[in-house]
Amino acid sequence: METSNETIRLLQSHRSIRKYKNQPIDEKILEQICYSGFRASTGGNRQETTIIVTRDVERKKKLWELHGEQDMILQAPVLLTFCADVLRIEKWFEVSEAEPVFENFLSFMQATCDTLLVAQNAAVAAESFGLGICYMGTTLWYCDKISEFLECPKSVMPITTLVVGYPDEDPELVDRLPLQAVVHQEKYQQPSAADIKEFYQEKEGMFPDRFKGTSWESIINDNGIKSLAQLYCQIKYKKDFMETASEELLKLIREKRFL
Amino acid sequence: METSNETIRLLQSHRSIRKYKNQPIDEKILEQICYSGFRASTGGNRQETTIIVTRDVERKKKLWELHGEQDMILQAPVLLTFCADVLRIEKWFEVSEAEPVFENFLSFMQATCDTLLVAQNAAVAAESFGLGICYMGTTLWYCDKISEFLECPKSVMPITTLVVGYPDEDPELVDRLPLQAVVHQEKYQQPSAADIKEFYQEKEGMFPDRFKGTSWESIINDNGIKSLAQLYCQIKYKKDFMETASEELLKLIREKRFL
Repeated sequence: METSNETIRLLQSHRSIRKYKNQPIDEKILEQICYSGFRASTGGNRQETTIIVTRDVERKKKLWELHGEQDMILQAPVLLTFCADVLRIEKWFEVSEAEPVFENFLSFMQATCDTLLVAQNAAVAAESFGLGICYMGTTLWYCDKISEFLECPKSVMPITTLVVGYPDEDPELVDRLPLQAVVHQEKYQQPSAADIKEFYQEKEGMFPDRFKGTSWESIINDNGIKSLAQLYCQIKYKKDFMETASEELLKLIREKRFL
Repeated sequence: METSNETIRLLQSHRSIRKYKNQPIDEKILEQICYSGFRASTGGNRQETTIIVTRDVERKKKLWELHGEQDMILQAPVLLTFCADVLRIEKWFEVSEAEPVFENFLSFMQATCDTLLVAQNAAVAAESFGLGICYMGTTLWYCDKISEFLECPKSVMPITTLVVGYPDEDPELVDRLPLQAVVHQEKYQQPSAADIKEFYQEKEGMFPDRFKGTSWESIINDNGIKSLAQLYCQIKYKKDFMETASEELLKLIREKRFL
């Protein structure tokens, strides 16, 4: 869409960056990124989020291991781990002789929601300074080990991570589903099989060509993968892994006293 | 902080708007808001989010009831309900003869994360057009009834809602905790009681004056509330309510087959 609105142009030109220059980020810029994050809406102005900044090369290497060895973590100068945190507010209640009320699942979800608004504001702020970002979904996959490494106590749980640095690549915009697939009027519109085929046509049409020359090509051939949907179900998001990781996640939520 | 960066200025001047003009939103602008939302990062490009747009006056009135009768819902022309949605992708797997893998808790959390990035991008986009927004945290509090009203099937769950419209007020920036309270270097820094008192000094110092002349004043007096922390624990987030709402939320997550 065409517009003269600078912010809209920025939002609509987001690409995740997976190759970074060896170039540090100015302290003032990092501060503005974090400050912009915390200007996002926060339920009841409770601010149930803590950002943990990782810059130390050795500690970054350890996080690279914990996140499944994605090399952009080694390249980029900064990793921001966004934690849902009700420890701080509970301590405030404690020193104010008020009774703690946030050791429950609703509180976990409220803190998680707030935390992701902080993260996305920080992501947009970083991009406005010409930096690139990439979210690490692996934070949820391996959150027990990441929580332990970052010394997150009870009531504090890592939810997502941003890799931040100067881009060393200029990738194309990635495809998105048509708006009519993802924006519904007045009530949820159940898609028919024909709708689904139409919505996913562009995406599925890029298979297998988009993977030619990448590390996925041999995986696709060796496993007889016939479609992008099969690649998702059989390789990227294996059922066993999803179920085991779900158990781990619930276990950690219990240990953090949210459940 | 001073900056010539238009996006940073926008992010750092966010105020939630609770009074709206009776002025419709141009269809093209609403489209840009939603499109900007869906340009946010999305894990594996799975786009596990659906926005449900409410404009119908009668349906908006019903949502006003379900959200606890917050009048801004009646005033603003548009309500956007952001749903974590894995139904669409599971249907794609189905028509592609691939086995469903997303009926689990990790998948719920992944979809929830993605959904909040979409919401925050949409919020920022709306503000870039001079619109005001307010998040409805009540979506999680009353999500079973909201889900039912919006006809969300299994695997689709409302997570948050934005009220969007032209502002009819110009409130001050709201206080935030100092950055050193919410941004930690390298690992989680447990705050001491003295730290907590310092972090919350500004916030607590505004009590009870900031509530003078509001509907909170008599509540504070009638209940002998002595601090902002006590107002949170004893009135705003009652333990019983938090625990009951947590059970309701978990029940819905189970019904949606995420648990």
